[in-house]
Parts: sequence; structure tokens; C-alpha cells
Amino acid sequence: MPGVTRFGVSLERDLLNRFDRHIGRKGYPNRSEAIRDLIRDSLVREQWEKGADEAVGTITLVYNHDTRELAGRLTDLQHAHYGSILSTLHIHLDARHCLEVLVLRGNTADLKTFADRLIGTRGVKHGTFSATAAGDILP
Amino acid sequence: MPGVTRFGVSLERDLLNRFDRHIGRKGYPNRSEAIRDLIRDSLVREQWEKGADEAVGTITLVYNHDTRELAGRLTDLQHAHYGSILSTLHIHLDARHCLEVLVLRGNTADLKTFADRLIGTRGVKHGTFSATAAGDILP
Amino acid sequence: MPGVTRFGVSLERDLLNRFDRHIGRKGYPNRSEAIRDLIRDSLVREQWEKGADEAVGTITLVYNHDTRELAGRLTDLQHAHYGSILSTLHIHLDARHCLEVLVLRGNTADLKTFADRLIGTRGVKHGTFSATAAGDILP
Amino acid sequence: MPGVTRFGVSLERDLLNRFDRHIGRKGYPNRSEAIRDLIRDSLVREQWEKGADEAVGTITLVYNHDTRELAGRLTDLQHAHYGSILSTLHIHLDARHCLEVLVLRGNTADLKTFADRLIGTRGVKHGTFSATAAGDILP
Repeated sequence: MPGVTRFGVSLERDLLNRFDRHIGRKGYPNRSEAIRDLIRDSLVREQWEKGADEAVGTITLVYNHDTRELAGRLTDLQHAHYGSILSTLHIHLDARHCLEVLVLRGNTADLKTFADRLIGTRGVKHGTFSATAAGDILP
Repeated sequence: MPGVTRFGVSLERDLLNRFDRHIGRKGYPNRSEAIRDLIRDSLVREQWEKGADEAVGTITLVYNHDTRELAGRLTDLQHAHYGSILSTLHIHLDARHCLEVLVLRGNTADLKTFADRLIGTRGVKHGTFSATAAGDILP
Repeated sequence: MPGVTRFGVSLERDLLNRFDRHIGRKGYPNRSEAIRDLIRDSLVREQWEKGADEAVGTITLVYNHDTRELAGRLTDLQHAHYGSILSTLHIHLDARHCLEVLVLRGNTADLKTFADRLIGTRGVKHGTFSATAAGDILP
Repeated sequence: MPGVTRFGVSLERDLLNRFDRHIGRKGYPNRSEAIRDLIRDSLVREQWEKGADEAVGTITLVYNHDTRELAGRLTDLQHAHYGSILSTLHIHLDARHCLEVLVLRGNTADLKTFADRLIGTRGVKHGTFSATAAGDILP
């Protein structure tokens, strides 16, 4: 692979044995892949803690589409932030409930505020916000 | 609203004032809606902690589609768990990177194992799992 | 109780039933106490997210006291931040391992930096940081 | 160091550069120490998720000692679980508020239940539970 480097890590033998079993249970093909994931996860967490300008996140909402005026309010909110929304996915969970996923790109503070607004909308039963990053800042 | 009940809550006046300002910043229309969300969030957390049979979750993956054989491996994994996948959403973040969201339904242990497998796949740069619940268990 | 107020909350009857069972399992004496805790927890989380000036937290460290120079480094670090440390508790977990708890008071950014430094010290095997607040901002 | 082994990790050069800056900000002396911490943290999380028999944790409580009968209730609860409590630390935060830290050892389910009971006690304003592990299972 271009741009791949190799370095050595010192680790207690017992700890390495436990780690090998742990990554086996998680389904990792090798240690490098598992360590790469731990590292990227630290970087993403730091990026969100310090409030980066360019981040990516997904909002998952579960709501009752019978709630009066909910659809309209959600649409209004989404239009007010249309510049941050990359795409949305909509699923009919049952006769009355929908799940909607929004993929967002923007600065961390804006995305959190937008998530708060959507989750706080009357009729939205549960909302979660999941923070990730664009590929280019996850070398 | 049918099936809606009303009960009283005792709260220190200062705490209530702080809460009112807090929910104002979060964009909640009223206290009941904010408290409803806190309650549902507790129920969803408990459901995932004790390992419920019927849960809903979303996985967000960021990956480099140039990674050799990645697309094939992800497709194989998804087919092996096709019964749990309600839908997927795919976005091209830039020339090389994709973001994929999978909406899953199943028991909590299976969904977590599936998420671990996907996130541990070589070439997947970042993965998050977001736990929610179906609408019918979020009255 | 002086300064206690009472307000009404509207909630779906099914949701209230689930909440009552949930707080029973958690051991809460009544709904007000459970809701009070959910509210305070939201306030503490917001305080730490926005970086308050006055916060309280505890750091838990597990370390091997045989590690050369570790005790000295930990002592140096603690003296450099002595103004933030309210108290410490030390436990001998087994022949080689200690657990140390530090209770800290200060602004959120300083406490996090101090926690990072302690957790990153060679020989410290595990460290966690737990964010809370002083009583006066938890009315 | 006895029992220390060394292995190689392959990583994208850009990712390694970002990681080096990240661990510099965190105050880590070298990559091995930082990776060791990421690994131990994964092991501790897995241990708590799957419910291990032997775990260590700390509970932090902030409470108002004026609350009638609170001290008695907390003492009763602690005596009922005295076998799990290794030590406690008590701090007077201000004229009315105390912070108490309990260090616990036992199986994960018991420790969580005990934490829920303490946090749910009337008069306890905020409680957090912090999961760690004994030194011998953190090689």
C-alpha cells in the first residue's frame, strides 16, 4: 500500500495475549487493523471534543407520523439546515412509526445544535446523534 | 391526545429554573416533551444493557472504496445478516471515500456482533453504532 | 421542603407504566426523585460540553507501584496541580497494584488536561475520569 | 522489563503523523504507552459489557447532608454491601454539600445494582459510576 509505514510497539506479553483474543472475538483480521481503529476513534473523539470545523455525523430519529404537524416541522427544520444535510433515509417501522436517518456535514457545533432541535421536536420519540469524520481527515 | 395522562413532579425551584433555561437552549417546546425524552432515553439504555430481543440500531461506516476486495467483503457480511438489515444508505463523501448507513432490527447481541464485524473489516476507517428502539416499545 | 415547587407533566400512559417499572428496578422511591436525577444529569453533561469554569470531577487510576519512577512522576504532577486537588484516596489492590482516586475542582478544560496527563503516565494501567458538579450548581 | 514483547504495526503515514500529534497533546511519552492504554481500555469495556465476575469501580456521589435521614439511608445501604466496598472518601464541598467516593470490587452486575441504589437515594444530587479493573487482569 502506498504511504504505509511500519513501527514497533512494546507490550507486556500477557496484555498482548488478551488483546489477541479480544480482537479475535471482534472479528479483526490482524492487530494492525484493530490498532488502526482504536487510533482513528481517538482522533474522531478529540475532533468532536475540541469542536472541529469539518465533521460528519448521522442523526437517527424514531417518530410517530400521526403526530399532528410533525412532518411539517421536521421538513421546515431540515430546509433551514439544508446546507448541512448530505442525504436522508426513511423507513416505515410499523403502521404508525418511522425511522429517519440524516447524514450531515458541517462544523461540530452546528451539527449538534441541529441534532438537538430535531430530537426536541414534539412527536420525535427517540433520537441519537453519532459522530464520525470525513474520509480525508481519517488517513 | 388519547392515552395521555398527567402527574405532578416536585422539584427545587432553582433546579426547575435551570432546567427551563437548559431546555430552551435545546429547543424543546415545553417541559413535558423534554422529560418524555429523558425517560425514553433511560428506557432505551436499559433495554440495550440488559440485552433485549427486539431492538433497532444504525451503523455508520466510513470507508475507502479503493481498498481491494472491501466492497465484496462488506456485501458478503451484509448478505450473511440480511434478515437484520432494514435498509442502507450510501453516500460518496469524496473521490475515494464512502459513508454507508445500515438500519438494523434484531436482538441486541446479534446487532452488536454484526456491527463489530463490519467495523473490524479492513478498509473501514471509522464505524459507529447507535442504539435506538422500535416505536412500539417507545410508547 | 423550602424552595420546592410542583408542576405537571403530560405523558403517554404506556410510557408512564414502563417508566414506573424502570424506576422500581433502579430503586427510586418515587417519580420526582427519578426525574430530578435525569434533569441534573442533563445539566452536568451540558456544563461539561460547553466548558464551565467551576466543575468537580474524580479521576480513578490503577497502576503498578513497581514501575520505576512512577510514584515520583505522579507526585510531581499532583503538586503541579495541587490547587485543583481536593483530596486523594489510595488503595492497595494487591501486592503490586494500587488504585488511586483524586477528587478535583476547577474549570473543565484544566481538569481534563490534568486527567489526560495522569492517565498518560507510564505505568498507569487504566484511568477514568468522571465528571460531576459542585452542590451549589445542582440546586 | 520482564515479560515485555515487541511487535510491528502497519499504519498509513498520515494517520501516524496525526496520532503522534494527538498523543503529544495528551502528554504520552511514546506510542507504545498510548497504544497500551487504548488496548487496556478496550479490554475493560468488553469486561463490563459481558458482565465479568471480578471488576473494580468507583462511585462518586454529591449530596446535601441536610436531607433528613439521608446519612442513615446511605450508611444502611453501604453496610448491606460492605463486602464490595474497599474504601470510601468523604469531602465537604461547602456548608451543605458532601462528595463521597466509594471504591468497589465485585461482579459487574452487583456493582451496577449497588450504584443504582445509591444514586437513586433521595437527597443524592448527582452520582456517577466509573468502571475499571483490578491490576491483575490488566497485565
